[in-house]
Amino acid sequence: LPRGDKTLDDRVFAGVFSLNGNGEMTGTHWVEESGYLEGPVMITNTHSVGAVHEGVIKWRVAQDGPDATGYWWSLPVVAETWDGHLNDINGFHVRPAHAGKALDAATSGPVAEGGVGGGTGMMCFELKCGIGTASRLVDIGGNAYRLGVLVQANFGVRAELRIAGVPVGPSMPGVPVYTDDEPPDGNSSIIAVVATDAPLLPHQLDRIARRVSLGVARTGGIAHNGSGDIFIAFSTANEGAGRSQGDAAIRSLPNHTLDPLFEATVQATEEAIINALVAGRDMTGDRGHAVSGLDHERARALLDKHGRLEP
Amino acid sequence: LPRGDKTLDDRVFAGVFSLNGNGEMTGTHWVEESGYLEGPVMITNTHSVGAVHEGVIKWRVAQDGPDATGYWWSLPVVAETWDGHLNDINGFHVRPAHAGKALDAATSGPVAEGGVGGGTGMMCFELKCGIGTASRLVDIGGNAYRLGVLVQANFGVRAELRIAGVPVGPSMPGVPVYTDDEPPDGNSSIIAVVATDAPLLPHQLDRIARRVSLGVARTGGIAHNGSGDIFIAFSTANEGAGRSQGDAAIRSLPNHTLDPLFEATVQATEEAIINALVAGRDMTGDRGHAVSGLDHERARALLDKHGRLEP
Amino acid sequence: LPRGDKTLDDRVFAGVFSLNGNGEMTGTHWVEESGYLEGPVMITNTHSVGAVHEGVIKWRVAQDGPDATGYWWSLPVVAETWDGHLNDINGFHVRPAHAGKALDAATSGPVAEGGVGGGTGMMCFELKCGIGTASRLVDIGGNAYRLGVLVQANFGVRAELRIAGVPVGPSMPGVPVYTDDEPPDGNSSIIAVVATDAPLLPHQLDRIARRVSLGVARTGGIAHNGSGDIFIAFSTANEGAGRSQGDAAIRSLPNHTLDPLFEATVQATEEAIINALVAGRDMTGDRGHAVSGLDHERARALLDKHGRLEP
Amino acid sequence: LPRGDKTLDDRVFAGVFSLNGNGEMTGTHWVEESGYLEGPVMITNTHSVGAVHEGVIKWRVAQDGPDATGYWWSLPVVAETWDGHLNDINGFHVRPAHAGKALDAATSGPVAEGGVGGGTGMMCFELKCGIGTASRLVDIGGNAYRLGVLVQANFGVRAELRIAGVPVGPSMPGVPVYTDDEPPDGNSSIIAVVATDAPLLPHQLDRIARRVSLGVARTGGIAHNGSGDIFIAFSTANEGAGRSQGDAAIRSLPNHTLDPLFEATVQATEEAIINALVAGRDMTGDRGHAVSGLDHERARALLDKHGRLEP
Repeated sequence: LPRGDKTLDDRVFAGVFSLNGNGEMTGTHWVEESGYLEGPVMITNTHSVGAVHEGVIKWRVAQDGPDATGYWWSLPVVAETWDGHLNDINGFHVRPAHAGKALDAATSGPVAEGGVGGGTGMMCFELKCGIGTASRLVDIGGNAYRLGVLVQANFGVRAELRIAGVPVGPSMPGVPVYTDDEPPDGNSSIIAVVATDAPLLPHQLDRIARRVSLGVARTGGIAHNGSGDIFIAFSTANEGAGRSQGDAAIRSLPNHTLDPLFEATVQATEEAIINALVAGRDMTGDRGHAVSGLDHERARALLDKHGRLEP
Repeated sequence: LPRGDKTLDDRVFAGVFSLNGNGEMTGTHWVEESGYLEGPVMITNTHSVGAVHEGVIKWRVAQDGPDATGYWWSLPVVAETWDGHLNDINGFHVRPAHAGKALDAATSGPVAEGGVGGGTGMMCFELKCGIGTASRLVDIGGNAYRLGVLVQANFGVRAELRIAGVPVGPSMPGVPVYTDDEPPDGNSSIIAVVATDAPLLPHQLDRIARRVSLGVARTGGIAHNGSGDIFIAFSTANEGAGRSQGDAAIRSLPNHTLDPLFEATVQATEEAIINALVAGRDMTGDRGHAVSGLDHERARALLDKHGRLEP
Repeated sequence: LPRGDKTLDDRVFAGVFSLNGNGEMTGTHWVEESGYLEGPVMITNTHSVGAVHEGVIKWRVAQDGPDATGYWWSLPVVAETWDGHLNDINGFHVRPAHAGKALDAATSGPVAEGGVGGGTGMMCFELKCGIGTASRLVDIGGNAYRLGVLVQANFGVRAELRIAGVPVGPSMPGVPVYTDDEPPDGNSSIIAVVATDAPLLPHQLDRIARRVSLGVARTGGIAHNGSGDIFIAFSTANEGAGRSQGDAAIRSLPNHTLDPLFEATVQATEEAIINALVAGRDMTGDRGHAVSGLDHERARALLDKHGRLEP
Repeated sequence: LPRGDKTLDDRVFAGVFSLNGNGEMTGTHWVEESGYLEGPVMITNTHSVGAVHEGVIKWRVAQDGPDATGYWWSLPVVAETWDGHLNDINGFHVRPAHAGKALDAATSGPVAEGGVGGGTGMMCFELKCGIGTASRLVDIGGNAYRLGVLVQANFGVRAELRIAGVPVGPSMPGVPVYTDDEPPDGNSSIIAVVATDAPLLPHQLDRIARRVSLGVARTGGIAHNGSGDIFIAFSTANEGAGRSQGDAAIRSLPNHTLDPLFEATVQATEEAIINALVAGRDMTGDRGHAVSGLDHERARALLDKHGRLEP
């Protein structure tokens, strides 16, 4: 996930939050300390964190070396969720070069959802899931700001699923058959990346990241013990501030104006998760492990029954 | 809120979490450091924190002095929410002696809900609110454990309110009229106290406290900037461990068994908030400020319309 | 400790750190969340936190009510250390009005050190101690910035004391006689307040506050279990930013220029503690409890013996 | 660094602290959440984190698969410091298989110090440094407990170095010549691992890890902006607790008995760093970059001059 049209060395203010830390997101010691996200945010599966970590540093080295101050970042942000049910996770198929290729291929524009990229082998509420995204446009003091959320969603058990407040999960048929060598809590984890162009300081981005939790809750999530629910938020405003050699001028929204961004975060997280689910398709993975996509007809019927479909 | 039938000096393992820190809960530096809650948890209004803080220490001094090791606690836990709309908050009517009386009068048994105690002047979603409580019984490995949540609920704007997933708020009539000298975000904050007899360690109680957030989210909360959403959780198990002079034997549930307690926390928090709302009654407070209680009939009709009432 | 010549409503960026939380500093939930210190920092003894807390809010109410936006702060920062050896701490002699008087009497200029104000009954390394202060002037990119540290020092046992790296403590005679009703760890705690005019963001002020620990270590401190070692740092730069109604312009030093401020914090903390000790005088307190001030002659001789006195 | 004679699946209670997060220690989200260290602690250089991360998981997979509950850990702890001055860090010479070999070769017994293992290319105070270790034996309530510290030390500038309180650094000749492509703060970072057999809970091990900072301070460290100063502490007591399927019996020392362990941590950290320095030898690394080892004669003379050598 490249950071829009930022150049390689234009770090951005960022914050992180771990709702339940049974997962990995590398690089966060420095994000928390410095207040900056310096490079891309990579999302992969649990056993590929190392390969992607090396791949990102190699890619960085291969670009154009350190910046004018002799600095380059070496603490990449690499996050993961566990896809061992559908994927041959012990095969270590993701190599460092794949990370470099993904970075070279990154573009702006619409984001593919469902079983794509890191989301390929992911499941939510025991249905096929993966990548989802949603965004909101908010007005603060007459200025329009955008906030978008991207999730790699891989959490929840069936009975917990609710859509638009309707307990859809209990009425959905068909749960996957797990084998004996799968961790009991393995069908868990959600990584979320929140991006905004609102000028927020690092401690304000911590606040944004923390509110991703509230969106997860609205889909039925309870942050299981086995779940790695780790969130990062960044702001593309204040371009160039991080490269300053002295006292830099930056812009910042005061705290008392932030509620629309908090609400946008909660809403866009909820929607991004449901979008990932809606984009999921029936799939048979490694070892013949099969998982169903969300039954759209049935979901629609349940929402209608509970008066939650727009006429 | 005394800690059940524990003696004065039998500290209990505890953990805390701040979802949004626009509020006060004193004593948490030591709870986080020591892993112990040493005395009662007091909940009052914003401007009475000082009086109650002094009152608790005075009460402790007046009991029987330090324990056998020369120790007594002097870092009481005092939390607050802001009741300046209904209460003459600048009158400083709560005195230290009131805290002592409350402690002397504390008993076991059913907890009064709604506009009682610290909850007297509190509002949720711009309706009368206050104290609410709910609990769950869970089975872990054949043992039954209890988990209860008590909230002093004073947060949210009308449009956000949802009950059992149904967006009840937007269809509820009548919002309070605020005066010019009230802080724009003043109608906010929720304090939650989670008590359990499950044998949990301090870091596990941090995890429980964090999950209160997910219950708040399900009622519609987004953790406004102006909200003091601070939670404390404690376990009454491991009696006497804190008084040990040496290596103490304690009991602890392993992490992978905790999901039922996490789910119980989310559910009981959601229910406790709704219970506080249901117990709220129309009230006219200081300066003629009026606020409505939840319209039970209308709420019931809305739930029925959305297929969420048990037949 | 008023914040220089700032007006009542001009909040300043701030950060906090707890090296060991066996103490109280109220108001920190909001400092951490908002990134702002909104009012004065008060330091008193353990049993007077409540009275001072109420006193500060009353003083705030008595000024001129809320600011133009309807806002006033109600979450004062009140910190403490324990003076029960020299003071009649259970007499609750500090009243809310004393806090108001202290605020009205606050001025700029040199700070009295040793057994004054909150420091009256405080001890370090079992010698008379109390308030100490020190500062540094640093150059960053051609700009001069000031950083000052004020401590209320009340920590350490004799054998630990070192001055300028010399283990002075073990050679200093005379330890106080403690009575049976004193907590075994009672001779502990240090509160530090770091003020700078360098333009730092809240997360950078957290970093400054954390480095106070390193200065404590150099005087021999090990952060005993019974110690409340809690630090707050604020920046007087960016005047008015907190009152902005929209996107505010602020200034900030980049992280890679901060080392001189980190070093200044460590050095000024070490010096402030030693200054508090040097300013301590023999004192007999409540119940005839006596404590010695540092023996200047002996300290000087020890430093000379170890080649640490400037010729 | 294997965890003594523990079996592969016997996780141990652990805690972490980041004094300055300009570095990586993977796996800490789960250590903080679960309170457990589940596998080995690996320490390498900055650009080899990925290779070692993959290597540890591969090694784990190659052992005997998941444990009896279907669980195996996949969130290894891998830490780093930057050796780009002496090492061809962009050559990515450490491969996943090296990590596996290191694990297979791990034994009990004395630990090699100085430029060995991950410490090969490391420098402290601009002198050759690397791995150092020291330990203390403490008595608590009649029981003897051991606490050991291992550091990979790679921090500090010359002028800061002090040994036993003596400012040795300013009088030591010869600083390395840095080239233009080296990060200005590159000669930084210290990773510390604290191991004890004292029965401590996770929140108590957080406290231990935090006190490593105080030992760093005594050698002259100020936690530069460019430093990754990240510490982990674990306890080998409570064997088997983590594998329990139900309510487990564990042992724990009460907080008020911990001061000897806190002091041991501070002392052993200071000594481990100095030991790493003392074990450093003149070295010429990649690109002809040369660095001196500590001049033992000169150091001894300086300590003698300041009366800090035992006769």
